[in-house]
Amino acid sequence: MAAPPKKANSGPPLLDLTIDNITPNTNRINAQCGDPRLRYIMERLVTHLHDFARETRISTDEWMTALNFLVACGQISSEVRHEFILLSDILGLSLLVDSINHPKPAGSTEGSVLGPFHTHDAPTLAHGSSMSRDPAGEPLLCVCRVRDPRGNPVPGVKVDIWETDSSGHYDVQHEGREEPSERCVMLSGEDDGRFWFRGIRPVSYPIPHDGPVGKLLEKLGRHCWRPAHLHFMFEKEGWDRLITSLYMRGDPYETTDAVFGVKASLIVDLERVDAATAAEYGVAEGTWLLRHDFVLVSEAETAELRDRNAVEALQKLGLNMRLVDHLPVPELD
Amino acid sequence: MAAPPKKANSGPPLLDLTIDNITPNTNRINAQCGDPRLRYIMERLVTHLHDFARETRISTDEWMTALNFLVACGQISSEVRHEFILLSDILGLSLLVDSINHPKPAGSTEGSVLGPFHTHDAPTLAHGSSMSRDPAGEPLLCVCRVRDPRGNPVPGVKVDIWETDSSGHYDVQHEGREEPSERCVMLSGEDDGRFWFRGIRPVSYPIPHDGPVGKLLEKLGRHCWRPAHLHFMFEKEGWDRLITSLYMRGDPYETTDAVFGVKASLIVDLERVDAATAAEYGVAEGTWLLRHDFVLVSEAETAELRDRNAVEALQKLGLNMRLVDHLPVPELD
Repeated sequence: MAAPPKKANSGPPLLDLTIDNITPNTNRINAQCGDPRLRYIMERLVTHLHDFARETRISTDEWMTALNFLVACGQISSEVRHEFILLSDILGLSLLVDSINHPKPAGSTEGSVLGPFHTHDAPTLAHGSSMSRDPAGEPLLCVCRVRDPRGNPVPGVKVDIWETDSSGHYDVQHEGREEPSERCVMLSGEDDGRFWFRGIRPVSYPIPHDGPVGKLLEKLGRHCWRPAHLHFMFEKEGWDRLITSLYMRGDPYETTDAVFGVKASLIVDLERVDAATAAEYGVAEGTWLLRHDFVLVSEAETAELRDRNAVEALQKLGLNMRLVDHLPVPELD
Repeated sequence: MAAPPKKANSGPPLLDLTIDNITPNTNRINAQCGDPRLRYIMERLVTHLHDFARETRISTDEWMTALNFLVACGQISSEVRHEFILLSDILGLSLLVDSINHPKPAGSTEGSVLGPFHTHDAPTLAHGSSMSRDPAGEPLLCVCRVRDPRGNPVPGVKVDIWETDSSGHYDVQHEGREEPSERCVMLSGEDDGRFWFRGIRPVSYPIPHDGPVGKLLEKLGRHCWRPAHLHFMFEKEGWDRLITSLYMRGDPYETTDAVFGVKASLIVDLERVDAATAAEYGVAEGTWLLRHDFVLVSEAETAELRDRNAVEALQKLGLNMRLVDHLPVPELD
């Protein structure tokens, strides 16, 4: 590669760095950054990283093991596998990031983790379509409605829906996947905000456990299972994007989800389709039935709540910050 | 992949996790880990990671940018490139880890960063050999001695030496590298602890800047240069492994090393070979000359100092710890 131009010896002078002075000096050299938000993020990152090393007195072997673990996470990742999302999931970070960014006012549908299996190639299907081609799955009819906190239907919402097949695998986990399966996109109805589709009854499944994250879970004595659930993502201009899941009540992993996604308000009971419903939706009587209403919050209301929460939380932490583009930067910058 | 056996619903029950309770609950589920050292490391890691997210109110976009950055670091890494070592280097972590693990009593040679360019295939050469095949380099004679803090020679030390060529690249950075160059291994002399070799005068060089770490440095407004130096690693049973470098005085990047490696005690002055030295070592008069003594510390003395420093530092941090195999774990565990 071509060498970059030599620069003047810019930056603060740094010499004789030690266990104690390395942190302020790393922050001092990073303070050359022109972007106040990135500068703040780096200052917090370096401080926590160094404090972590000092509090653990991390050994050279442990440090190298960690760096090699990170390389392995990158190298097993692909177009259809993101091991760092999985790592973030099992460390509780994904749930935390979702909670910070998508606060939910009382009465709205709570969020859950996105997970690493959402794709952008799901077909858009008409209401009533089947999104599964798995003959071994137990048929499930889902009849849902999208509404606002005042009960009004929200039409024209793009709804992404995805689940595993009956073996507990997403389509992308099968080698030689040629087309999407157990996933679709629907639009909520123009009049009533409704959408309905046929899928299969979700099953518990292990998160990918053949990679570095799976090995870490094993070392931690944790299982790698998720309770049975259906994923949903709701998008419409002016509304806060809702990423959530519905969890089947009574699953053996209901309270020990490997990725911390379950919330009481998202646990649902399946019913059986009765004669009237069977006639209305053209499915067999006795088919599994899930009825659920999703409540979206406007982007403006969410942004206002997120900002208010941020200001309050940072004050509690004793940090003197202001929000720029809704993101905190130090006040005295 | 085969599904792992379903387990009983083991682990503490976790439900309704929020910005505030996700951290103790993640630590609670990780507390199932049977290894007290790993348990402690994970507890500190999760706490710092979550505090970082809460203090920055990190956005979903920033989080995803970070996860994709980590994937890119893994994917550019190879047998001859370790982007995570480079990342650790530019964040000051490598220097910190070295300082924690290899404390140096007064009078001994200080450590510096290993960097990502040490290999295990350097040839073992006889004293006086040339370790460079670069005709464009300015010839340099290095005459060194390994001794203990009381001035006694330490014979039979395996000394790894590596530097860039005159273009500022390590051999592994050239495509199609067939054999090692600008690197060798020597043994310190049986009688006097001496070793001497012919290399080339080191030059300043940019760390690899075509990958994610280089892009990060650019965003931070930092240059990617290292001041001219020669790498050394000393290994002998019973002696603490010394990883260090010698830096050429007056380099334009002497006080702004991109990876924080420079220490005043490691900055050296080059001389010119006089007639007597030229005759003794069989090099031309006027050749660049570097004379240096390296002072090693015994493994036992280092371990004792490292343990003492750890206990003191952890007490200062208010942490109630004990050392097991020289590594801290919580006292009340």
